[in-house]
Amino acid sequence: MSSRIDAYLLSIGEEVVAGDIVDTNAAELSRRLKSLGLQNRGVEVVGDRTAEIARAIRDAAGRARVVIATGGLGPTRDDLTRDALALALEEPLVEDPEALRAIEAFFARVGRRMSDSNRIQSLRPQGAEMIPNPVGTAPGLCARIGDAILFFLPGVPYEMRRMVEDFVVPRLRELGLAQPTPPRILVRAHGIPESVVGERIAEFMGEANDPYVGVTVSGGILSVSITGRTVSEDVRVRVESIADEIERRLGAHVFGRGDTTLESATLAAVRRAGLSIAVAESCTGGRVAAALTGVAGSSDVFVGGVVAYSNAVKHNQLGVPVELLAEHGAVSEPVARAMARGVANSLGARVAVAVTGVAGPGGGTPSKPVGMVCFGSFRDGVESSVTVTYGGERDVVQQRAARHAIDLIRLAAMRSTTLAEG
Amino acid sequence: MSSRIDAYLLSIGEEVVAGDIVDTNAAELSRRLKSLGLQNRGVEVVGDRTAEIARAIRDAAGRARVVIATGGLGPTRDDLTRDALALALEEPLVEDPEALRAIEAFFARVGRRMSDSNRIQSLRPQGAEMIPNPVGTAPGLCARIGDAILFFLPGVPYEMRRMVEDFVVPRLRELGLAQPTPPRILVRAHGIPESVVGERIAEFMGEANDPYVGVTVSGGILSVSITGRTVSEDVRVRVESIADEIERRLGAHVFGRGDTTLESATLAAVRRAGLSIAVAESCTGGRVAAALTGVAGSSDVFVGGVVAYSNAVKHNQLGVPVELLAEHGAVSEPVARAMARGVANSLGARVAVAVTGVAGPGGGTPSKPVGMVCFGSFRDGVESSVTVTYGGERDVVQQRAARHAIDLIRLAAMRSTTLAEG
Repeated sequence: MSSRIDAYLLSIGEEVVAGDIVDTNAAELSRRLKSLGLQNRGVEVVGDRTAEIARAIRDAAGRARVVIATGGLGPTRDDLTRDALALALEEPLVEDPEALRAIEAFFARVGRRMSDSNRIQSLRPQGAEMIPNPVGTAPGLCARIGDAILFFLPGVPYEMRRMVEDFVVPRLRELGLAQPTPPRILVRAHGIPESVVGERIAEFMGEANDPYVGVTVSGGILSVSITGRTVSEDVRVRVESIADEIERRLGAHVFGRGDTTLESATLAAVRRAGLSIAVAESCTGGRVAAALTGVAGSSDVFVGGVVAYSNAVKHNQLGVPVELLAEHGAVSEPVARAMARGVANSLGARVAVAVTGVAGPGGGTPSKPVGMVCFGSFRDGVESSVTVTYGGERDVVQQRAARHAIDLIRLAAMRSTTLAEG
Repeated sequence: MSSRIDAYLLSIGEEVVAGDIVDTNAAELSRRLKSLGLQNRGVEVVGDRTAEIARAIRDAAGRARVVIATGGLGPTRDDLTRDALALALEEPLVEDPEALRAIEAFFARVGRRMSDSNRIQSLRPQGAEMIPNPVGTAPGLCARIGDAILFFLPGVPYEMRRMVEDFVVPRLRELGLAQPTPPRILVRAHGIPESVVGERIAEFMGEANDPYVGVTVSGGILSVSITGRTVSEDVRVRVESIADEIERRLGAHVFGRGDTTLESATLAAVRRAGLSIAVAESCTGGRVAAALTGVAGSSDVFVGGVVAYSNAVKHNQLGVPVELLAEHGAVSEPVARAMARGVANSLGARVAVAVTGVAGPGGGTPSKPVGMVCFGSFRDGVESSVTVTYGGERDVVQQRAARHAIDLIRLAAMRSTTLAEG
């Protein structure tokens, strides 16, 4: 690790210090830097004070060869990054005619009026370089202090992301600061407890091992990372063979590698099997459909869904018999199966999943506590159901239940492939 | 600010350094600390190396009176926080019988097998105190170094949150470290550009002003913060009167204050007007329904929704005439209006909103580019529609469009109230 070049991140903005917004940029930048062989050593979060930002800029430049700062480049008077950089560089601010034209062009394109305050965004410290922003009004800034290179980007994630790819990465490559990285594979799994994973693969997890194996869980998704400590063919082969062995031990719980999401893996499985999907949701309220349709190109297999929050909608739209609702209650496996069958039939899909449960915080009973969720799945006329009880808050119950429903679609699609092949 | 007590945060875990997960804990803790009068001075992100975590613990204890660390308390071998704390304190690890009983009880309650690795979670440095975890298996740790108090909590957000409220906050109050805080009001708005807000309220936004006014935008939601620099009745009154004036200047764009979300403000407006909601979604794919049903208690006004991804579903479930789809295309205001009317009628709701658009990245044409979204709204037989074109990626288009749809419901509900009152 000592051979790697260090990076340091600054997140600028009172809203980040105060936690009014979550700083997703640091994580994203860390990950992108790592992929370039740059080791993020830390993050400093700084509020909207010119002198304090200037101090943080100088400190960061003393700590790392590459500094990326986000935030404070907007059009309002609390956006102080460009003033702070001018102070840190001891240079005056000058207007950049090209940046001004780009801002004017942006406003013309989206058909909005350009305000005087947007003009501030065309200022830069004399010795700094403007970074074009093709998707917004705030240009970035690039400057050098000593042997450090510093990039200042807007805090809006998709603007930042675009400018990293268009400007920061090419510049780091030009300067020879982007290096080859040690091999790394992420194995992604769902539906198996972290402690069970830890036991099944314990022999790979020693702190001193090379490659180093780590297990993390976030939102019910397990990630097993297998990371080499050095760059060599031998290590690359070992990373690959350990990843294969870990996948073998975790079986069908594994849905993919790297950035693969459960949603995209599920859609791919459905696509491979030539199927189509519909969903019926009560307690997840649209989350299953939203997660699937969040993936570009989902429309080729995702037909649609019904959010059946009331019993009337469960009956009228999904054809769940009133007697079934009366006898078993809305949160029950028979109703979940009927919802899945109903949505498959009425929307014309070959695979369907249904979710009905008690997301909380209210609505729990001794026999149907908060967190209890029934799932129904349907595949070419064959139905099944399962009940899972989740701990945690409403949001957690909804998220976990949505993930589970998506995984049921994936498993149903894989099963059909296996049957067709068998 | 110098009168406030400093806090410092540690986020522990290779997955945070690598950016494999986004650290939402730091922002949340910052905000919670601020509400207690504790000023977060910074965050250090540390990977899974015992010696490095121990060094970060000692550094943090030297920088601040209150340190909160999250992560590294899980059951696997890469969870090293307890070893690192033992190293920092120069104390051995001992098994805590009470913690062991609590972990056993947790597994009995959720009906899962307890593994040997979970037993590691009952270890603590000799001089440290266990922090009970009522919602998971990883207890926290509390220790003192010099005059600093340090809390170590699991990285799982809902476990961390619960332990902050149950243990950390009461302990800070006992120790007299939680102070009265300067007054602060957040005004939340939607549907107005940041630069326009900045101009309308520019006179309040000087860097040296007391109270200090800042504007931030995240996911299309604007937050105007009005924050006093000192604790006094005079400042409190000024904060309140400036907030009132800012609300007056931003008009119906303002949906609430503080933690109020657009979703909860919308549901409240619908509830006040005695209405009910249904939604029909194409390009947002369930996000409008998911956002509304994410709010506890939404079932009293939210009836349900239809995710009509295919034209067949738009016709069969929502009654959109085939001729309308053929003549105007699925992404058009006439179809959006028909979808809103159709879902209101078939689900039996008095207010409905419909969204149909091109989320991208594919599917755009010169006349209907990526980012173009048509909205239909329906209120007791009266229909209207509007088209908005968004910049940004698929995820951004879907999120902004969902927010806009929700705001249309709010405005429709408010309009009806005004009419009824008028």
